[in-house]
Amino acid sequence: MSLRQKDSPRILVWTKIAHCIHRIRTTVSYGGLSVQRFTSIFANDAPPSSIIIERVEPELDAGRYAVKREVGDRFEVTADIFRDGHEKIAAFLKYRRKDAIEWFESEMHFVDNDRWGGAFDLTENTRYVYTIEAFPDVFGTWTDELRKKAEAGLDVASELLEGRAIVVEASRRAGDDASAIERSIRDIDGAETQSIAVELALSDDLAELMHRHRSRVGGAFYERELEVIVDRPIARFAAWYELFPRSAGKVEGQGATFDDVIARLPEISGMGFDVLYFTPIHPIGSTNRKGKNNTLNAAPGDPGVSYAIGTAEGGHDAIEPSLGTIEDFRRLVARARDYGMETALDIAIQASPDHPWAKDHPDWFFIRPDGSIKYAENPPKKYQDVYPVNFFSDSWKALWEELRRVIIFWVKNGVTHFRVDNPHTKPTIFWEWLIAEVQRDHPEIVFLSEAFTRPKVMRALAKAGFTQSYTYFTWRNFKQEIIDYFTELSQSEMREYFRGNLFANTHDILPYILQQGGRPAFKFRFVLAATLSSVYGIYSSYELCEATPVPGKEEYLNSEKYEFKVWDWDRPGNIKGYITTINQIRREHPALQEYENLRFYGADDDSVLCYGKSTPDHSDNILVVVNLDPFQVHETWIHFSLADFGIGDDEQYRVTELITGENFIWTGGSQQVRLDPHNEPVAIYAFHRWSHMDSVESIN
Amino acid sequence: MSLRQKDSPRILVWTKIAHCIHRIRTTVSYGGLSVQRFTSIFANDAPPSSIIIERVEPELDAGRYAVKREVGDRFEVTADIFRDGHEKIAAFLKYRRKDAIEWFESEMHFVDNDRWGGAFDLTENTRYVYTIEAFPDVFGTWTDELRKKAEAGLDVASELLEGRAIVVEASRRAGDDASAIERSIRDIDGAETQSIAVELALSDDLAELMHRHRSRVGGAFYERELEVIVDRPIARFAAWYELFPRSAGKVEGQGATFDDVIARLPEISGMGFDVLYFTPIHPIGSTNRKGKNNTLNAAPGDPGVSYAIGTAEGGHDAIEPSLGTIEDFRRLVARARDYGMETALDIAIQASPDHPWAKDHPDWFFIRPDGSIKYAENPPKKYQDVYPVNFFSDSWKALWEELRRVIIFWVKNGVTHFRVDNPHTKPTIFWEWLIAEVQRDHPEIVFLSEAFTRPKVMRALAKAGFTQSYTYFTWRNFKQEIIDYFTELSQSEMREYFRGNLFANTHDILPYILQQGGRPAFKFRFVLAATLSSVYGIYSSYELCEATPVPGKEEYLNSEKYEFKVWDWDRPGNIKGYITTINQIRREHPALQEYENLRFYGADDDSVLCYGKSTPDHSDNILVVVNLDPFQVHETWIHFSLADFGIGDDEQYRVTELITGENFIWTGGSQQVRLDPHNEPVAIYAFHRWSHMDSVESIN
Repeated sequence: MSLRQKDSPRILVWTKIAHCIHRIRTTVSYGGLSVQRFTSIFANDAPPSSIIIERVEPELDAGRYAVKREVGDRFEVTADIFRDGHEKIAAFLKYRRKDAIEWFESEMHFVDNDRWGGAFDLTENTRYVYTIEAFPDVFGTWTDELRKKAEAGLDVASELLEGRAIVVEASRRAGDDASAIERSIRDIDGAETQSIAVELALSDDLAELMHRHRSRVGGAFYERELEVIVDRPIARFAAWYELFPRSAGKVEGQGATFDDVIARLPEISGMGFDVLYFTPIHPIGSTNRKGKNNTLNAAPGDPGVSYAIGTAEGGHDAIEPSLGTIEDFRRLVARARDYGMETALDIAIQASPDHPWAKDHPDWFFIRPDGSIKYAENPPKKYQDVYPVNFFSDSWKALWEELRRVIIFWVKNGVTHFRVDNPHTKPTIFWEWLIAEVQRDHPEIVFLSEAFTRPKVMRALAKAGFTQSYTYFTWRNFKQEIIDYFTELSQSEMREYFRGNLFANTHDILPYILQQGGRPAFKFRFVLAATLSSVYGIYSSYELCEATPVPGKEEYLNSEKYEFKVWDWDRPGNIKGYITTINQIRREHPALQEYENLRFYGADDDSVLCYGKSTPDHSDNILVVVNLDPFQVHETWIHFSLADFGIGDDEQYRVTELITGENFIWTGGSQQVRLDPHNEPVAIYAFHRWSHMDSVESIN
Repeated sequence: MSLRQKDSPRILVWTKIAHCIHRIRTTVSYGGLSVQRFTSIFANDAPPSSIIIERVEPELDAGRYAVKREVGDRFEVTADIFRDGHEKIAAFLKYRRKDAIEWFESEMHFVDNDRWGGAFDLTENTRYVYTIEAFPDVFGTWTDELRKKAEAGLDVASELLEGRAIVVEASRRAGDDASAIERSIRDIDGAETQSIAVELALSDDLAELMHRHRSRVGGAFYERELEVIVDRPIARFAAWYELFPRSAGKVEGQGATFDDVIARLPEISGMGFDVLYFTPIHPIGSTNRKGKNNTLNAAPGDPGVSYAIGTAEGGHDAIEPSLGTIEDFRRLVARARDYGMETALDIAIQASPDHPWAKDHPDWFFIRPDGSIKYAENPPKKYQDVYPVNFFSDSWKALWEELRRVIIFWVKNGVTHFRVDNPHTKPTIFWEWLIAEVQRDHPEIVFLSEAFTRPKVMRALAKAGFTQSYTYFTWRNFKQEIIDYFTELSQSEMREYFRGNLFANTHDILPYILQQGGRPAFKFRFVLAATLSSVYGIYSSYELCEATPVPGKEEYLNSEKYEFKVWDWDRPGNIKGYITTINQIRREHPALQEYENLRFYGADDDSVLCYGKSTPDHSDNILVVVNLDPFQVHETWIHFSLADFGIGDDEQYRVTELITGENFIWTGGSQQVRLDPHNEPVAIYAFHRWSHMDSVESIN
């Protein structure tokens, strides 16, 4: 095994046992749960370390939860590291795959005010564990002191002898470098004058050798091992398209098949979507089936709600027969992949009264005193077509194992994304267990949490392991509430674990802004979803600007939740071309593929929102300006920070508006914009440094 | 044992074993160090709890360090506590003395947005451990549902049966209350109509019984036990007076004795001081003794620096013979106590070359290659009269134990406060061990950390257990830097563990502001120290406005560190009366006895500082206005928040300036003040609600 890897973090192979021994020693002095358990400090022959490691970032809830990153990221860790007195210290960021025993390490560097920083590259789709080790830099401390005394003209004979002992000790651990170190010792011993000896002792060569073989005696480990989940890039950057497979056909009053969905793939892929998300595809119960527009009794021929899962023909691992077979489904998944799209399945953990579980495992449900299974309720409302499961019955283990089996079943059939319905009505600890279990062997799987519940519950689900989360985006329509909410999502600690997937609509939500704002609102709400976050989604019919509500509600009239539906995908007023353009812009601009790089800027008009995104190297810079008023033209000044885009205050620069393709030469961070919602409610500017372009072009 | 205690927290005796069993169960699901150790979740028959307890406050560094409070405080704890779904939960704050096995508990209450709060009274000078338990409120959830369904007119026969099972289960654990619960069951069973049964099931009597005997099945413990150190009130509220005992006499060129110090007690106590702090009182080494003004070679008769501790006559547990005997010292401590003052001793862990340790335990020091002991250095400076000790030698345990013995020795001789010299050059882990060891049997002992080093090092010492800490106060002279620094001390997380003891001067520091600002500066710097913090100190001669520096340095010329000194304690220009007045104001005003209640207010003039302190019930309200310019008169508007003082915006109120005793009637939170430094640079206003006073007086 080579001692060096690219990017210069030194590799050290540690056995888990050796690491444990160190931990046991340091736990005595830096014990976690038991504060100051000092009766045991004398149980060791070695004294405790005097080094303190604290305020490690990132760290969630004292390491209780993992942070999230994506493959290809460089993972940066900072910490306060210090000790008493003025002796120098060295520190290493240590890391390993969670499922491996080999530790690697990367040296940390002093930043400022006792703060240190280190980093390593996240190369694999897996979970890593990381922690910090720090120890006294004995040789570095000694050379510092020697240099000062020699410069002051003091006799350093005694100091040279002290240093000799440090170097001799290192040579014993130096392996192939031992002879080089011993040669240095002989040279210093044989130096004709003390000043020559000092010069040799302070040489770069010896410093390099000693650096490589530093003693770690007196060192400390950070008291916790922390975890980072490294997802695939698609977890951060993706456009989702939700559809009811049964609505993909062309015959009125008749359900479509998976083959009809396959026929739609070129169009959906052509608009630039990455993830194809199907509402449940399982057999739909007939007991207490709901009719059109959520009526209590279905008419003959009504297909029922696909969330009332299960019939005698099967449950969560079965296919609704009218859609096709499991082979048809696998073919659909494969064809979608050919078109560059992955497949997401809806997971709703509940059963129709006809579900096989209700017959075979009534113990997985809540039982009424008369022995019957309890249906879902929100008193006084009753949902008699659905049985919730009981995660805490005496048979909880069998139920949890069955649910894990169901997920793995679909994973084996090609599904890579799971959109989880109402996760907040199930135990968070269940999701934490389930996601870890699935991702242990299938780290590529993405879980999206549907919850729109209390903020702390939504955050808890994300911390428990959900890869992505629904947000309050649909209910954030005005300038300040958008700024506040997305500043929280992208700038607070939430950015470490909560990836907001912005759905502009869902099969359950037709927001008022779309009902009232018409096509201009559909356009700018789409751009907001697609550029405020790097991951977003729409529910099919958005591209048609479908906006007929159940009066007074944020729900679709004649929703395809309750009936067969046939759509004219080319109907007038559709914004398929617009969606295609925006998705193309997202794909061409790396700045829009990052999540936490969102920055808001000022605009004098309260209906105009201005924000930007940049890559860290300023190679790609995007400024988005949105007229949030779907009715009126707004013309206003916007004020952004040129420094955020790597552009000087007095510099002229080129700006391209990406929707229209128009170019401008601008100077300064204040500009005037005019946005007509009936023409184009949004401007997306890409910034180019003119002087830079110029010089590049003149060279070529 | 009674089931109830004052203030209504219910008492439950838990054996440590029972608690451990609960912890083991919850640790599986809420494991700390090992994130998501889910292979073991199925090791239990019982399912994990679905309740999440997080963001507990106060909590320092994930419970690694204890927070600090004082006897008499009510200890308030808040946390996010929630679960999936809409079921109700109950939560208890659990606590015990750290050295006891009995747990007590106090019910927590829902605050807002999934936040809960609870509290208990800190009645003893000891360390407490606290944590949180929460569990589903099964009966409360059931009554909620029953009420909604009954109100909707639904048949609730099945629900009544479910509730019956819950009540029967509780009756089995209800002890003396079992018969009352069984009577309720019989009444409900025998109800003539369902609506009567519902009424009985929802009765307050049954709710009270069920509340008392709630099942805790499905509950969770917070994953950590946290600690609070409860010091005596003197740890928060005290005025310190530092002196060199050898300077207490009247004969020039001759050292004073402890009896001379006793003669000074009436005057020091009369000024209102609470803690009498002596610089080291041990035998002073003669090898390389320093002379006057820190010269390298002492003249015959020079007494030496009292920090060069130890001669053949003894070390850290001995008394410098010229001061008296240990019996004399005990008499001094007892007399001081008669005058209401406690005694603080300086602890400087270092030795003169003549210290008995140097002969008997050379292994406790750093050894040079030639076998001699290393003296202290800060290259190129040498401190040849002082040997630093080596906390990490092979003999570290013996050294640490000896240092503990020394502290306990002085505790047994009546010392209650230790001011630790240069703690930042010794391992923080040593202090953590030492302080915990001493306070285990002597919780009344106060440790004051001298360090003025890097902010994080100072904070680490406080977190490690120092009761009080020196601050940067001497170097915070201007308005904004005072506001910034004291906002950090009193409002940030530091207030949980760092009690800033504001020394206006020390034997090492004569600040420039005092050198240049003269008597006005001595007055307002004293008021700042005495009112910005509840605990402060001066070094003797401050009351004389002694301000002759070593030119260009913040040090005293002819410092008594190096020579015998005789002071005229009544010399002209002294501010003893002023000090007496301010200390009297502190004693009369509870608002000035609190630490974290400091709030800064606006003043239009950049040289005028305005701040206030209030008791939580607004029974005492203080507003301090300081002219920070010792040279010129400043007249300006100040702007404070009447709401902070419990006074209405339109209300007329009485204000007493406490130094002069003048009274004013004010209205509104903006007032004009004029401060002449040569007359009185400070105003200290006490606020009285006039209407309140009025009504009280008319009643009497």
